[in-house]
Amino acid sequence: MAMNSDYVCVREVGLRDGLQRITVPFPTEAKIEWLRIEAAAGISSIEVCSFASSKVMPQFADRAEVIAAARAIPGLEVCATILNYRRAEEAFTADVDALNFVISASATHNMQNVRRTPEQSMDEFRQVVALRSSRDQWRRIKLAGCIATAFGCTLEGSVDPRRVLSIAEQYIQAGADEVALADTVGFASPKQVKTLFTDLLALTGSLQVSAHIHDTRGLGLANVYAALEVGVRRFDGSLGGLGGCPFAPGASGNIVTEDLVFMLEACGFETGVDVEKLLPLRDLISRYLPDEDLHGAFARAGPCRVLVE
Amino acid sequence: MAMNSDYVCVREVGLRDGLQRITVPFPTEAKIEWLRIEAAAGISSIEVCSFASSKVMPQFADRAEVIAAARAIPGLEVCATILNYRRAEEAFTADVDALNFVISASATHNMQNVRRTPEQSMDEFRQVVALRSSRDQWRRIKLAGCIATAFGCTLEGSVDPRRVLSIAEQYIQAGADEVALADTVGFASPKQVKTLFTDLLALTGSLQVSAHIHDTRGLGLANVYAALEVGVRRFDGSLGGLGGCPFAPGASGNIVTEDLVFMLEACGFETGVDVEKLLPLRDLISRYLPDEDLHGAFARAGPCRVLVE
Repeated sequence: MAMNSDYVCVREVGLRDGLQRITVPFPTEAKIEWLRIEAAAGISSIEVCSFASSKVMPQFADRAEVIAAARAIPGLEVCATILNYRRAEEAFTADVDALNFVISASATHNMQNVRRTPEQSMDEFRQVVALRSSRDQWRRIKLAGCIATAFGCTLEGSVDPRRVLSIAEQYIQAGADEVALADTVGFASPKQVKTLFTDLLALTGSLQVSAHIHDTRGLGLANVYAALEVGVRRFDGSLGGLGGCPFAPGASGNIVTEDLVFMLEACGFETGVDVEKLLPLRDLISRYLPDEDLHGAFARAGPCRVLVE
Repeated sequence: MAMNSDYVCVREVGLRDGLQRITVPFPTEAKIEWLRIEAAAGISSIEVCSFASSKVMPQFADRAEVIAAARAIPGLEVCATILNYRRAEEAFTADVDALNFVISASATHNMQNVRRTPEQSMDEFRQVVALRSSRDQWRRIKLAGCIATAFGCTLEGSVDPRRVLSIAEQYIQAGADEVALADTVGFASPKQVKTLFTDLLALTGSLQVSAHIHDTRGLGLANVYAALEVGVRRFDGSLGGLGGCPFAPGASGNIVTEDLVFMLEACGFETGVDVEKLLPLRDLISRYLPDEDLHGAFARAGPCRVLVE
């Protein structure tokens, strides 16, 4: 099962999830350089920003420029996050390739994150789908339904998997092109990942499924492997693991793109990415964000190679 | 398959594998304190030393005292490593519970490590088994046959799995009670782990099988999960990941005992270990080895819990 050589899509989310809580401004030119280095290394999908108020997330005030630069890179899938209906028109007009809508399975988390109940958020997702149909040129834009806190929540504790699967069903019925499960706070175990993705894949049929895994407690790549084994073929990663968890100082947040690619290739999957070409990006990030810890084992240990003495 | 609640043995190897390359002396009393903290936390098997010349490994010059202290802890399995026949009598006389004999699947690595061909090492293992039979009180001592560089070698590159399985067969025929595969240099991928342990378990029948996994390239726990999924139920770990790889400065070496226990428990396995009781040991180690980096995500992020604001 699932361990044949085949393609796995690695989506970079560092420019969005990595930067969103960082208050030090990351210059637009550096974001564009980031895009170029990753695309040249073979990354084919990048989430470039969140459509949030520039007051709440000033890091994305330059999103029009960043999206334009990303759109100019041939073959790159340009993704962005939206959290409500209000900014959907702006996002569609910005002409991204894919939008990621987020609803937390934990009602408390959803309320804190977007000041809506999960039901209100789902109503807005339906409005987003309807808005997409309203103009011909918007119909090509993919809509992914992401379920945050799918494996547990720092506010509510454990999250009933039935609640997650119910939101997934609603996303599918509403017209989502992809369903993503996110381990927003790093609570997932490989056993949970195996079970929940198995159940999700039974619902989704031919629909795209993806995993947004965090590495807060060191289980990130084990969770990726568990998802791979049951058939998931699309994973988010953040360069250098940028985007630590605000509730666990010093802890890693997103899984490290470099390590993710290394593991996938070591398992015989094809990612299209040359992991060594990603490494110079770490220097770029450190130059602009000297106070951020970058994570990653591959960057420290390098590839498996014979040592000549 | 394999993901039911059942028992997994976590064997601590930090006192041997962690300390063996560290030249700063680690005081005997601190080793004994280490044993006590781990046993009190529920660790039931500890490798306490290597039977090597005190010139080569001065860190183990106090092994008689450390073994005596370990033997005094009720219920603790006291293990040690031997690398040849010469020190087997000393090891049997020291009255440990289990001895771990090591042969590298890479002939070059075996020659560098113990100055013998793998065939010469296997001949000595047979002599060790014969020696055990020569005295009644030694027959209770378990002999584990460990295969080092089973997943690749920094001197030879890739290692033919058939060579690994052939050594395993010879160990079994010689009378080993356990066969261990070690990813000595951190080259293993989950795919390799899955395949090689599946093939090994087809050979070993009811014999104990164990995994000694390194985390050099960040795949340590993913490799553990892959081994768990095919039925391996015995894993080595090192407290704080002590024992970095000498060929990759700054890289982690052994998988971190705390993170291993955390993942196993999160997957519903029973380890008998209270992971939070292991954490004070990190302070003990740092006190005596202030220059060693301790690794581990659990120690930074803590358990999955609801945050009260």
